[in-house]
Amino acid sequence: MKACIITIGNEILKGKTVNTNFTEIGRMLYFSGYDVYRGMIVPDVKEEIGNAFRSLAGLCDVIVSSGGLGPTFDDITVASFGEEFKIPLVLDKETLLTIKRITERRGVEMTKEREKMALIPEGSTLIANEVGTAPGIEYQKESTIIFMLPGVPVEMRSMLKQIESKIKLKDSFYAENSILIQGIYEATLAPYVTELMNKHKGKVYIKSHPMINKGGESALEVEVSAKSEMLETSKSTVAEVLREIRSIEKKIKS
Amino acid sequence: MKACIITIGNEILKGKTVNTNFTEIGRMLYFSGYDVYRGMIVPDVKEEIGNAFRSLAGLCDVIVSSGGLGPTFDDITVASFGEEFKIPLVLDKETLLTIKRITERRGVEMTKEREKMALIPEGSTLIANEVGTAPGIEYQKESTIIFMLPGVPVEMRSMLKQIESKIKLKDSFYAENSILIQGIYEATLAPYVTELMNKHKGKVYIKSHPMINKGGESALEVEVSAKSEMLETSKSTVAEVLREIRSIEKKIKS
Repeated sequence: MKACIITIGNEILKGKTVNTNFTEIGRMLYFSGYDVYRGMIVPDVKEEIGNAFRSLAGLCDVIVSSGGLGPTFDDITVASFGEEFKIPLVLDKETLLTIKRITERRGVEMTKEREKMALIPEGSTLIANEVGTAPGIEYQKESTIIFMLPGVPVEMRSMLKQIESKIKLKDSFYAENSILIQGIYEATLAPYVTELMNKHKGKVYIKSHPMINKGGESALEVEVSAKSEMLETSKSTVAEVLREIRSIEKKIKS
Repeated sequence: MKACIITIGNEILKGKTVNTNFTEIGRMLYFSGYDVYRGMIVPDVKEEIGNAFRSLAGLCDVIVSSGGLGPTFDDITVASFGEEFKIPLVLDKETLLTIKRITERRGVEMTKEREKMALIPEGSTLIANEVGTAPGIEYQKESTIIFMLPGVPVEMRSMLKQIESKIKLKDSFYAENSILIQGIYEATLAPYVTELMNKHKGKVYIKSHPMINKGGESALEVEVSAKSEMLETSKSTVAEVLREIRSIEKKIKS
């Protein structure tokens, strides 16, 4: 099963904000058993947002987006989504009541900007915002489930937990672990990694990450991941391959 | 002028690595005068990498990618790019000599994995790697300049500086600045922001970012950016709009 991520906002594209939302969404999807297959970062531009949803809807089983659900003029995710797929927006009465309660409690006015947060694509299911105002949106578009989450990290995170329990695959478990290898260059290890990948074809993925080492010596983080129908099987495969890598390390150093 | 970013690597999609390369590339492009228009995050899969370059080449004047230039089996950016656009790869003799010098100095073998780093698309210009082994690649594809940089941040960063001086626009200067506003909700400020944006139509962009506040009080970072042919003009426009926002703040609080 494939999953894709869309993050929306000029601040990410121009490098003002480090895209930690992307990282958190990716991690949740990965550990829920999905292949996280493509990510798109788009500006607060209607056509770009619409295009991102359209190009990924055909490709992925799950899409999670973050950003553009708030009250400002450039929070246009819902409107862009609706327009792209010709889905009318409807005013959700319960959300409107919640917004009214919040504005009364805060002693602020009900504005059309606040009311906008209660506009949702017809046929959506809402995801409760336990932290802020705008609800998240779940929409089934043919075989793709689309989740639109806010960009404010604390709100996004609380919704991620809610959707995790909903989409977690029951027959796909990833495990991963890594070891640090000192004094061996990535290119020296590379042919052994290729060989190991072939030996465990399709069952494991091995990736090496060169690290900056204070002493100037080369260091590699070698990460092994495996996927299977049982978490225990995945874990033991990872452990086995890591042992094989340690023996290769000894062989190279001897 | 539009710029796009591609970052390549499973580790980003599955949330192992926070995509700081994306942020650094975005910031360089933005302050070089470009509209950073779309980002794509793709896995170490040939078709996905090829598709990313193809779909952005028609859209952007500049594309910067990072990742997939190293010696391991899944470093396939150059091969994917060449295959997608039917550009043959050629062995760059000077790079091969550099790699040979490095391997001799390190006392390690020359392997085909190391040799791979000297394979470049025919017609490329190389970007010197001042820190590691694999060079960066510059390729002019019709009206789009494509830069392929390594994923190791310290290597990527050193090349970003080299290309910045090459692509910096001479007639497009961004300036930005932000202020912190306490005790006003984003939705309360929103209609005033819309009004200000209309007043300075096309000249400024105003974005508010709700902040987490220790005291529990709402806080907003309001960021103003402007673009013009002169840096001084952009800066004074930003300063003017920030003053207008401070008066709005006073008005709301009075």
